[in-house]
Order: sequence, then C-alpha cells, then structure tokens
Amino acid sequence: MEEKEISQAVIGRLPRYFRYLGELKDEGIERVSSQELSDIMRVTASQIRQDLNNFGGFGQQGYGYNVGYLYEEIGKILGLHKEHNLIIVGAGHLGQALVNYMNFERRGFIFRGIFDSKKELHGIRIREIEVRPMEEMEQFVRENGIDIAVLTIPKNGAVEVAERLVSCGIRGIWNFAHVDLHVPDHIRVENVHLSDSLMKLSYNLASHDG
Amino acid sequence: MEEKEISQAVIGRLPRYFRYLGELKDEGIERVSSQELSDIMRVTASQIRQDLNNFGGFGQQGYGYNVGYLYEEIGKILGLHKEHNLIIVGAGHLGQALVNYMNFERRGFIFRGIFDSKKELHGIRIREIEVRPMEEMEQFVRENGIDIAVLTIPKNGAVEVAERLVSCGIRGIWNFAHVDLHVPDHIRVENVHLSDSLMKLSYNLASHDG
Repeated sequence: MEEKEISQAVIGRLPRYFRYLGELKDEGIERVSSQELSDIMRVTASQIRQDLNNFGGFGQQGYGYNVGYLYEEIGKILGLHKEHNLIIVGAGHLGQALVNYMNFERRGFIFRGIFDSKKELHGIRIREIEVRPMEEMEQFVRENGIDIAVLTIPKNGAVEVAERLVSCGIRGIWNFAHVDLHVPDHIRVENVHLSDSLMKLSYNLASHDG
Repeated sequence: MEEKEISQAVIGRLPRYFRYLGELKDEGIERVSSQELSDIMRVTASQIRQDLNNFGGFGQQGYGYNVGYLYEEIGKILGLHKEHNLIIVGAGHLGQALVNYMNFERRGFIFRGIFDSKKELHGIRIREIEVRPMEEMEQFVRENGIDIAVLTIPKNGAVEVAERLVSCGIRGIWNFAHVDLHVPDHIRVENVHLSDSLMKLSYNLASHDG
C-alpha cells in the first residue's frame, strides 16, 4: 500500500487501536462497529473512522469492522509482522527493566545485545544476554543487523553515542536519555522523557489546587 | 495567577522549556531571546512566545527572557516548588528502576512507600524504602499524605488498584500499566505506555522502508 504522509497524532493513536482490538480478539469478538469501538475507547466514532480512513478504511457500511482482520492490518501498518533486532545502551536499572520486560519480545522486538561503559558490568548476563563494552558496539550493530538502539544512559553521553549509532547504520533510536537528539532525517527517534511526563502530571495536579 | 484552561499540548511542552532553561542557567547564561531559544530548541520563536503568553508572557520587547526568572516561574507553574509524596505499586524491575532514579527526588518527587502483592518481596528494601503488602496501601496513603501513585504492575490488576487508590484520596496516578484507567475527573492520570511508544517507532521505521 502506497501511503501518504500520516500525521504523528494519528500514528500515536494506532497502538491504542491495536491494543483494544487485541483485547476484543482475545474475548472472541469477531465484529465491532465504530460506535462500539468508540464506547470502549472513549473517542468519537467519527475520529475512529477518520483515523482508519488514512489507511484505506477497513470497514463496511452497516457491517462494522472485522476484529481479527483489522487487528492484523494495524499490526502490519505498525511494522509488527517483521522482527526487529535491538540493542540496549546502558545496563542500569532502567535498561535491565526493559530487557526483562517480555512483552516487547512477544511483539517481535528482540534484544540482541547490551552495552555499557562500566567495566564491572561486562560479562554479566541479563536474560542470557551478555553486557559488552562500548568499544564493541559498532561492530556488533553491523554484524547482527541491529535496526533499533535503546538509549538508557545519562544525558551527558547520549548525544555522542547517538552519533556513533547513526554512523554504523542504526535506523531507529528509542531514547530514554533526558536530552533531545538531533540526528539525520532518515533516522527515526522516539523519545520517552520520564521526567517530562512526571512534570506534566505535577502541573495538572497544581492547576487543580484550591 | 488565575489561569485559564491551557491546552495539554502547551503543557506537554513546558517541561522541555524547563529543561533547556535549566541548562542555560547551569552555563551561567542570564538572558535569552526567543530567537536564541528557538535556535537551540528547534521550535519557532513565535511558538515560544505563544506558549509562554499563556502564562502571562515573561519577556520584554527587545530584552528577551531572564533565564533564572523564567526557569523559576516555569518550575512553579509545573508545581515543582512543592514536594510530592509518592508511592509505587509494583516492585518489579520497572518499579525498582524508577525508585532508583535519583532525578525525580531532586525535583521534589519523594518516594515514600513501595507496595507489591508478592509475599517474597515484602520487607525487602529498595533505597531504604521497604516493600509492603498491598493490604497496607490505603492506610499508608492516608497517613503519609501521599498525592501521587505510580503504577508499575501488569494491566490485569491495574484497574482495581486504581479504584482503591482513588477511594483513599490519591490525586494523581502515573500509570505504566498497559491499560487506560477511567477515573473520576478530579483525578489526574499521566500514562507512560512503553509498548505504544515502541510501536510508534516501529511504524516510523516501516513507513520509510524502500
């Protein structure tokens, strides 16, 4: 399917559709109308139709959506029918938590290597995956067809590591470092700025005081 | 300052302003124009002026912004001048990673208690904080003035735990469970759906394939 440029807002909502459809599927539900989907997802039916129309529709007037089909198709749009090879840079608590989180692997995101600058961590295994020194990163990326790097390092080192990753052919960076990475346009970056998220919660609490 | 309703998009950008201003402050820079801020943050100067005008401006024509003052004021808007008392529900890898992440505490987010349903974790300490059984949660929240609960549990239990938290007076939930929580309007929820974020990255990689 040749796609036009889809807004990041729409793309940001796709995983949520995927999640809800997965749950309906698990419950054995085969068809759902946009109105029913609207009720459980608490967005408007017209929003749902508009979002899905970006990808060619999927629904039939008066029939609704076929849950299994729509689930599969959104999965494909999200690139979940292919395996992704990941490395994690930063074997601290957060890095370890992500490696230990099995759901990613179930979706085809496979952690292949873990890298850290701390000597005392080298050779340690987290779920069978050995922690390696940073010097081996570029070669490992090239030899193992790594397409996504997860950055769970402090912000000071993150910019330089991102540059090294770009130069050895990584295509996507899942960035937990508390810094904005400026990389070439063909590299995709998805940020998880935890502090920003917590501050937003704090704002919303403060603005409802008194 | 009496505030009008500010859009969540603007609020979502405030922590980023706060972060960049903090860096300028650390570098000893006292004044910054919206154009300079625009260059380092890679958003338009007019966006910056518009965003900050929501809170009354802060800038003087031809003078720019006073970095220290703006940093303080945005911090106040974000509610960072007050301490927040947090509990974490879920002492798994992710919960432990968050407790161990010192930057939250530096911003006034203090972890007071950790709760988990697993008996074998009870009594264990993570950074001096004891893991307690779920049964003690409500009383602990009430007695320790807890205002924010962090949910790092699987999605199955999250909805019920959220209801219990609401009923004992929690005001904000930082939700890492992979489920949408439907809580009363006066409760603030901020979601960190890690799988959704990773799927968004996957989409952006897939949509740029050959």
